[in-house]
Amino acid sequence: MNWLRPLAAGAYRVPFWAQHRAPSCPLRAFAAHPENQVAEGVVKVQQPKAQLGTDEGKKNFILKTPKGTRDYSPKQTAIREKVFNTIISCFKRHGAEVIDTPVFELKETLMGKYGEDSKLIYDLKDQGGELLSLRYDLTVPFARYLAMNKITNIKRYHIAKVYRRDNPAMTRGRYREFYQCDFDIAGHFDPMIPDAECLKIVHEILSMLQLGDFLIKVNDRRILNGVFAVCGIPDSLFHSTCSTVDKLNKATWEDVKNEMVGEKGLSPETADRIGEYVRMPAGGLGLIEQLLQDPKLSQNKLAREGLGDMKLLFEYLTLFGIADKISFNLSLARGLDYYTGVIYEAVLLQPQNAHREEPVNMGSVAGGGRYDELVGMFDPKGRKVPCVGVSIGIERIFSIMEQEVEASKEKIRTTETQVLVATPQKNFLDVRLKLISELWDSGIKAEMLYKKNPKLLNQLQYCEDTGIPLAAIIGEQELKDGVVKLRVVASREEVDIPREKLAEEIRRRLES
Amino acid sequence: MNWLRPLAAGAYRVPFWAQHRAPSCPLRAFAAHPENQVAEGVVKVQQPKAQLGTDEGKKNFILKTPKGTRDYSPKQTAIREKVFNTIISCFKRHGAEVIDTPVFELKETLMGKYGEDSKLIYDLKDQGGELLSLRYDLTVPFARYLAMNKITNIKRYHIAKVYRRDNPAMTRGRYREFYQCDFDIAGHFDPMIPDAECLKIVHEILSMLQLGDFLIKVNDRRILNGVFAVCGIPDSLFHSTCSTVDKLNKATWEDVKNEMVGEKGLSPETADRIGEYVRMPAGGLGLIEQLLQDPKLSQNKLAREGLGDMKLLFEYLTLFGIADKISFNLSLARGLDYYTGVIYEAVLLQPQNAHREEPVNMGSVAGGGRYDELVGMFDPKGRKVPCVGVSIGIERIFSIMEQEVEASKEKIRTTETQVLVATPQKNFLDVRLKLISELWDSGIKAEMLYKKNPKLLNQLQYCEDTGIPLAAIIGEQELKDGVVKLRVVASREEVDIPREKLAEEIRRRLES
Repeated sequence: MNWLRPLAAGAYRVPFWAQHRAPSCPLRAFAAHPENQVAEGVVKVQQPKAQLGTDEGKKNFILKTPKGTRDYSPKQTAIREKVFNTIISCFKRHGAEVIDTPVFELKETLMGKYGEDSKLIYDLKDQGGELLSLRYDLTVPFARYLAMNKITNIKRYHIAKVYRRDNPAMTRGRYREFYQCDFDIAGHFDPMIPDAECLKIVHEILSMLQLGDFLIKVNDRRILNGVFAVCGIPDSLFHSTCSTVDKLNKATWEDVKNEMVGEKGLSPETADRIGEYVRMPAGGLGLIEQLLQDPKLSQNKLAREGLGDMKLLFEYLTLFGIADKISFNLSLARGLDYYTGVIYEAVLLQPQNAHREEPVNMGSVAGGGRYDELVGMFDPKGRKVPCVGVSIGIERIFSIMEQEVEASKEKIRTTETQVLVATPQKNFLDVRLKLISELWDSGIKAEMLYKKNPKLLNQLQYCEDTGIPLAAIIGEQELKDGVVKLRVVASREEVDIPREKLAEEIRRRLES
Repeated sequence: MNWLRPLAAGAYRVPFWAQHRAPSCPLRAFAAHPENQVAEGVVKVQQPKAQLGTDEGKKNFILKTPKGTRDYSPKQTAIREKVFNTIISCFKRHGAEVIDTPVFELKETLMGKYGEDSKLIYDLKDQGGELLSLRYDLTVPFARYLAMNKITNIKRYHIAKVYRRDNPAMTRGRYREFYQCDFDIAGHFDPMIPDAECLKIVHEILSMLQLGDFLIKVNDRRILNGVFAVCGIPDSLFHSTCSTVDKLNKATWEDVKNEMVGEKGLSPETADRIGEYVRMPAGGLGLIEQLLQDPKLSQNKLAREGLGDMKLLFEYLTLFGIADKISFNLSLARGLDYYTGVIYEAVLLQPQNAHREEPVNMGSVAGGGRYDELVGMFDPKGRKVPCVGVSIGIERIFSIMEQEVEASKEKIRTTETQVLVATPQKNFLDVRLKLISELWDSGIKAEMLYKKNPKLLNQLQYCEDTGIPLAAIIGEQELKDGVVKLRVVASREEVDIPREKLAEEIRRRLES
């Protein structure tokens, strides 16, 4: 019965931080691998003879969700709901509005925004009409929205699924369809104030979710570009070099250097010069000062600007009381092309309930940065709207929460039903229907068994199984007396309540 | 500036119930029309020279959302949220769990489920790997989920977007990407109890949304199949005849008959025999009795079963107190292949705020029915899980709500911000940052302007513009005294509050 929950099941077996990385794949695979890395449970189905429709007959097909995707069961959506509520309450606390955009965009809208990662975009089939692609993130659609509606000033959040034809690793929370929770601030403002707020938001959310210790790495594309410039890399290779440097958190310096030299065509000396910077130990104000004194880097205008702003950012983060979780890290580069200023990425250091001695980098759970040029790419007159934002990647957070729930054997309710309408009597369906209808109309969350003559025991068992706290029991005597027997499922205590007071009494009992 | 909000703007101009139907198109167009019916505002964009990415240069492209789709602005998402909350609270009141499935399915999963409408399915491009399609509804993915996980008993809701390459008519709320809010009950139960609950849910939701008068039409596929059988139609043409009958609510009998004879190859006499039934005036128990007495139809086993259950359904609906809004209507057929028993469709009779004398059918806002065979089509052993459900189509409801808000000039808040942290002083950015951080950490929804030295007037104006009820003003004197000046924006009343009591005071004032 291995295929019962083929995609979700694997997630429980081995904690994802304990899984080995594929040794043959030190750098992130950019093209989707043809073979499945995860065990996808499948089953051949004999499709019954066409009773419905005309274009089907007996044939085998495979009962599964598409590669890299999964269903959410009621228990999983219940956990997901908790995570969403935490994130949404934080976004609202910071005054964000909500927008929504279509799941697909014109292919052209997405073109030229993601660098090497563009290969991972899902295209729709050309069925006549426009060429479309599934959104790859929520940032490019946001920029398209701003330009199209000439909005120059907005603070919004957007929670939605995005799509990447990446090599899935679902036990580690990497899917082809996954949620992003984005918060962005667009507009011409004074330096680093919105940027600092984005980091405050990441800090609040990761603290509230209680996922254990975390660290937020920051860097600035202007500083990186300054580094590339003083190391002698031509402008045209900046983005591509960024992509390579970005792999430093998953690969060794040797692998990264090999890619720079072998694939990107840099000289080994140039690569080493870059290495001297991007391999510097992470730090804070000290590292900023050190780089401001660097004889080469301090000559570069962009780098000086970036370092000045980084200093300002740390001032604001100190006022917010969160500077201790922030680390200025020259090896952070971020993969996407559109960043122009500060960039950041949050990593969990250790799963809360794991018994390990040293902190383990569990991978990024949030990331973002400043992208001042993206809206201008869409605007007919090239007008710029500076933007900064953050994206919370919740699949990994879900994985952790699910494992915690699984480990704790905590029972999670998947409904909010307050009362079960029950009867000990035969032929009382009409009485139950009338009573439950009254309760629904009074706003009470009520269920009943869909049987004409259910046994009382089965009705009470249903309450136990699903966590319904109360049963409203009606039989001949109660009907005659105009009352309903209200039973507390946990204590088995029963009390007669006048029928017209029932809704009120249920509400009273469940509020306290 | 017509292109500012090209897709949403049109919706306001002419109320959709006042729009003419395209006269050349009496029957629903099954294939997507190549030409746009709606005016899509577009704008040519000069893409700036490639600064980002490599595969772009100077070229024109069009700044728009894909055909038949739209963005939701903050105001629209605020209205949408209200509608969702009403619907979700109803689904929860009836004890539903939540599941979620991927936006795409294996193409094979969707094949052979939708009859003629299969043409409208969006396929993904074959980029190597599985052949995928965007979901066309939430029902087939639900059935696939049940079979895959061997679930035989569940009551769930699912709210998500579905995709149809239909001819969009966005001013009337018909989109290619649109939300469905589905509630379904799966399991072996006694007849018509879950079916009646689905109708109760439609009744509750349409009542709570206060959209004016509505009617829920019901029929049963078994009765229709009985009608087709006694009229001499071969089994193999049942589904196709259903699709044609389904058009009766949008087209005349003559058009429908022409399709039966011309396209489906029925004889004019057969078509007329069908017409005698499906054109019968809608009714209730009376019509059921009349058909049970019908010399031909009463000989048909399926029809007798369907009519018997219809009688039972009306009994239960009477107990629920909603039978007056339900109409048994033989012309209701529903387009989809998978229905096997009772089917229903809710229509709004009249917009609430329109000054018209006769009720106008504004089109369907909810529909559903029983589909007892669908899960079995996916199960490797063909095991059946009987299901019944309803889908609320909210795009039309949104349209109406948006028009109402527009007409009432009601101001809708798009954020929940409780307080703006402000200052009358220059160089007080650090003080504001520290104060707002304290408020956020106390759970207060707070904003500040992202300027180093904003004018007090601008700060107060921002409160007025966005509906923020309170301003927390801090200047030199307040800082010295350890207080914050709390200003009620509406009344301009100001009072000094000790800084450590500020969060509590804000909460107290906004609760009452």
